[in-house]
Amino acid sequence: MALPAPITELVEQLQRLPGIGAKSAQRLAFHVLRTPREDAERLCEAIRGVKERVTYCSTCNNITDADPCTYCTNPGRDQRLICVVEEPQNVSVVEKTGGFKGAYHVLMGVLSPLQGVGPDDLKIKGLLSRVGDGQVDEVIVATNPTVEGEATALYLARLLKPLGVRVTRIAMGIPVGSDLEYADEITMGRAMDGRREF
Amino acid sequence: MALPAPITELVEQLQRLPGIGAKSAQRLAFHVLRTPREDAERLCEAIRGVKERVTYCSTCNNITDADPCTYCTNPGRDQRLICVVEEPQNVSVVEKTGGFKGAYHVLMGVLSPLQGVGPDDLKIKGLLSRVGDGQVDEVIVATNPTVEGEATALYLARLLKPLGVRVTRIAMGIPVGSDLEYADEITMGRAMDGRREF
Repeated sequence: MALPAPITELVEQLQRLPGIGAKSAQRLAFHVLRTPREDAERLCEAIRGVKERVTYCSTCNNITDADPCTYCTNPGRDQRLICVVEEPQNVSVVEKTGGFKGAYHVLMGVLSPLQGVGPDDLKIKGLLSRVGDGQVDEVIVATNPTVEGEATALYLARLLKPLGVRVTRIAMGIPVGSDLEYADEITMGRAMDGRREF
Repeated sequence: MALPAPITELVEQLQRLPGIGAKSAQRLAFHVLRTPREDAERLCEAIRGVKERVTYCSTCNNITDADPCTYCTNPGRDQRLICVVEEPQNVSVVEKTGGFKGAYHVLMGVLSPLQGVGPDDLKIKGLLSRVGDGQVDEVIVATNPTVEGEATALYLARLLKPLGVRVTRIAMGIPVGSDLEYADEITMGRAMDGRREF
């Protein structure tokens, strides 16, 4: 004999979420069972709210509930400086530094020939037209320091430089608070290459 | 600047779930954003289904979509043998052994004076009336081998024995496939005490 069908169904749906295995899914399903009905309802409403009210900015492709997004319209942000990231969630990582006051451009992915992702699958055209308008001084390429992220960064630099814009890449090196002991040789090499004078 | 309000709201709701921290909640919220609308809808429906269609069996308190539950009504199960567990999810653990063909009784918790859980907060009365009817030969107490579970087991044994029923406790010892090396002294002691002849 098995669990009641509605529980099994919820366990199945929860298992489709990233990072949720069979055990977590069952624990979550039983939690939903115990939780007050209003709380379950609030969770459903929140899921719906995301699907219904969140869209992508037609300028920078960041997620937003108003198009164009606040980063693109806020007069306090320097629209002549664009930070390019792979995914919308990367924007908040840059924002948390508190030091960046430019605009963003989200590629919605990264070049990956192995997974069949080519330049036409990314939001590169929009970036080129933003830069091509002559409204941009510098593009900071903040794709991940992975093979794909690096390849994408190089590809973008080759497209953007002829447009007369400054193209920069975020620094790679030893993470702050870490120990050289734990650095792999490539990271250590990048840290040496990227050394700066006092 | 922050994430769009619907995303923040979903992150907040997800963080209320057990075992979901800030990072997981954000990852899940972005997954919901990317996922097709039908998938998000199916998840919501599954959550609702659990709240609307799953109840507790009025006999054994196990979760069920039909009251009384299949364990209590199935003629293939020995109603003279009752396995007592703390929570509904414990039933599936016993079921997975494939060897138990009796009925269940879910206490819906465990005695815990520190957390203010006394005998009246548990489904003990129902168990006593099932046993008191003279329809039961043996009660297997399968509460957890924790301080609270043990106390609850002793408490139940003292109530049930005078009713002329056999009361047993599941064995404690070294888990199968484990190594004595990793056994704490209390478990090892229980394993020694519970030794059986070949």
